[in-house]
Amino acid sequence: MRDAYHEELDSIGDGLVEMARLVGSAIGRATTAILDSDLKLAEAVIEADQRVDELQHELEARAITLLARQQPVATDLRIVVTSLRMSADLERSGDLAQHVAKLARLRYPERAVPHDLHATILEMGQLAQRLMAKAAEVIITKDVDLALQLEQDDDAMDLLHRTLFQHLMDDRWKHGIETAVDVTLLGRYYERYADHAVAVAKRVVYLVTGEHADDLQSDNIQPTTQVEGA
Amino acid sequence: MRDAYHEELDSIGDGLVEMARLVGSAIGRATTAILDSDLKLAEAVIEADQRVDELQHELEARAITLLARQQPVATDLRIVVTSLRMSADLERSGDLAQHVAKLARLRYPERAVPHDLHATILEMGQLAQRLMAKAAEVIITKDVDLALQLEQDDDAMDLLHRTLFQHLMDDRWKHGIETAVDVTLLGRYYERYADHAVAVAKRVVYLVTGEHADDLQSDNIQPTTQVEGA
Repeated sequence: MRDAYHEELDSIGDGLVEMARLVGSAIGRATTAILDSDLKLAEAVIEADQRVDELQHELEARAITLLARQQPVATDLRIVVTSLRMSADLERSGDLAQHVAKLARLRYPERAVPHDLHATILEMGQLAQRLMAKAAEVIITKDVDLALQLEQDDDAMDLLHRTLFQHLMDDRWKHGIETAVDVTLLGRYYERYADHAVAVAKRVVYLVTGEHADDLQSDNIQPTTQVEGA
Repeated sequence: MRDAYHEELDSIGDGLVEMARLVGSAIGRATTAILDSDLKLAEAVIEADQRVDELQHELEARAITLLARQQPVATDLRIVVTSLRMSADLERSGDLAQHVAKLARLRYPERAVPHDLHATILEMGQLAQRLMAKAAEVIITKDVDLALQLEQDDDAMDLLHRTLFQHLMDDRWKHGIETAVDVTLLGRYYERYADHAVAVAKRVVYLVTGEHADDLQSDNIQPTTQVEGA
């Protein structure tokens, strides 16, 4: 029974990595769609989110079946419960990528992002995609140091977000209210996306160390156990 | 053992109701704080969110202990897993109320909301608070019809959100970019708050009927079981 159990646990882990891969690709492509005002690409991103939602439902069902049949305790139980939370974070990240794509579609054939903010939004999109790629790597490797590194990347996102706001608040802003609203929402979508990627990584830290990531300093981590398949 | 078990389950349900009560109060008070530019009230809301976070951690710990000790299956298992999700929704709602309060503090002693949007923001705040009060009632009563009613209230929130955007996009908008950005974010906070309240209610529907609320019509519900203490 233990073997079937760990296989099932591994397959939940694989599902999480697959979700992270999909939503990472989604935010990258949504960013391209909004910067290039590419309607087809935007619609592809919007449609692809369905697969992410399906994966989440599958993962949830599998986790609940596992809890019922195998009745795990201690670390194994924590892994399953934490996996449920990670899948919720990843599903929500997918929604946020979809929001970016929907804004691209709404403004098509116009561009939602003015030229002088193109570079900032590109950077936010790229950083979001990198954060999710790292979160996936953290799920695979259970590398606590890499997980804590994501918080620094998130600081970079906050900085980009502030840059965006400085542009908006600048007296020389000449793009009108509609664009200000679009850019405000876009900034919020990328920031929240990054928060969810960081949350995924933090949950792995919790699994590995038994401590919430907020309570840890990078240099005094005491891994209590090696976990697999989360 | 079953009695201790159901007592524990009930106390998780009580914790969820308490969280809903706290975040319902928070959004009401945050709305007052931003409309009146009341710094003290804003700070009280910001500080009070800590209790919501603590409650979530307590509930999580209790749910995990319950899973490990009692190893529930079937409906009981669903209740515990779903409770974990509800507590996440409620915690996030608390964050959003806190965001409203933080915006009030940031703009103090100025008012973030211009006079001609006062009524709309007041309505959004009141509706958000009512939605959460109903969500709490749904947790207590497991009333599926009331839960489905929340979706209609959420439509009213969407309408208010659109009204807000129409104001923003109106050529006669005379409040400048900063206020446009503030109002955009505020609208988003209330909309997301309402989404979480609806999500809480939907999860109760799932517990009672075994079906996701999206798959249900109000008139063809087949409760499969009576659940308690969710």
